[in-house]
Amino acid sequence: MKNKGNLIVISGPSGTGKGTVCKELLKAQPEIVFSISATTRKPRPGEVNGKDYWFLSKEEFQQMIAENRLLEWAEVYGNYYGTPADKVREVLESGKDVLLEIDTQGALNVQKMFLKEGTFIFLLPPSLAELEKRIRGRGTETEEAIKRRLSAAIEEIPRGNNYDYIITNEVVSDVVNKILHIIEAERCAVYNNLDKLVQLENEKV
Amino acid sequence: MKNKGNLIVISGPSGTGKGTVCKELLKAQPEIVFSISATTRKPRPGEVNGKDYWFLSKEEFQQMIAENRLLEWAEVYGNYYGTPADKVREVLESGKDVLLEIDTQGALNVQKMFLKEGTFIFLLPPSLAELEKRIRGRGTETEEAIKRRLSAAIEEIPRGNNYDYIITNEVVSDVVNKILHIIEAERCAVYNNLDKLVQLENEKV
Repeated sequence: MKNKGNLIVISGPSGTGKGTVCKELLKAQPEIVFSISATTRKPRPGEVNGKDYWFLSKEEFQQMIAENRLLEWAEVYGNYYGTPADKVREVLESGKDVLLEIDTQGALNVQKMFLKEGTFIFLLPPSLAELEKRIRGRGTETEEAIKRRLSAAIEEIPRGNNYDYIITNEVVSDVVNKILHIIEAERCAVYNNLDKLVQLENEKV
Repeated sequence: MKNKGNLIVISGPSGTGKGTVCKELLKAQPEIVFSISATTRKPRPGEVNGKDYWFLSKEEFQQMIAENRLLEWAEVYGNYYGTPADKVREVLESGKDVLLEIDTQGALNVQKMFLKEGTFIFLLPPSLAELEKRIRGRGTETEEAIKRRLSAAIEEIPRGNNYDYIITNEVVSDVVNKILHIIEAERCAVYNNLDKLVQLENEKV
């Protein structure tokens, strides 16, 4: 029996460094497949379909919503963004692990479909002061937008309760190392190895 | 807030190599505290109280049973054997991990008291033929006893269903390495890190 891959979901409030952690994790373990989002926004110069995003028309996207073919989706400033379920399942069935970087709202939806199969990791900032520093550090937003984003991030912290793992992102390389340990542990998880019990049972004569 | 240690339970049918795995694991990670059993059998020459066993009188042991102070216990050939709960809790409270090597019946009892806090690892033989080879390899038993032990071991395999992790013991060093990954992952497990959410919550002004 071929083992399926694991769905690794990296989530957490904005400003906790999901993007950087995922980038470094993929460098450390290149055989993990990063899940590519679908979007209805126009490709920017240099962006490639199937690499940066799956670029879809509004009609195609709405069709996918209607057919329940997205793990999660959201509308942001008139554009749709979402995670196509088929692609994720395809890669998992091939035995490879899939990495999903996603906000806490999206992660909640993915849990509904993958609660048992997914590995849900919640990133935390070392402190609220550091969170504010990181959100301000982007330097692209008005004071009002920063305040809004910060208070939204703080509101999301208790959602960590619903995850499998919680990691404080103090040093990125430490976080990546912990995730690599989690991935290895998950390969030994009982729900990934029930076939071994059956296999031994079948040896009985 | 000080983090508590984890209870690591290594179990599995007889002949799967629990003892060897635990010995090598303690060599690899000497800061793990091996849980010492209590027994009413007489110490053999060289055996030290509190190192090899806690040597108790029958009355002391029965008192512990009556006061529910054993995680699990069994009577074998007129002697009692069991795991004192106080010692385990003491070490866990001090922040250290405790290792428990235990048969599948004992593990079931420990699960009743430590289901959420414990990490339950089930060892499997690579095949039933290999299991028989290992049980015969001890060379100390009659053919009848061997047959009985083997069929008991086979009957226990489906119990792996109730564990957190399943590992096939093909190469001991690989098993130890997997357990080390599991221990590291468990330190990130949500139930070991809920204080971090509370801590960040408390920073709010």
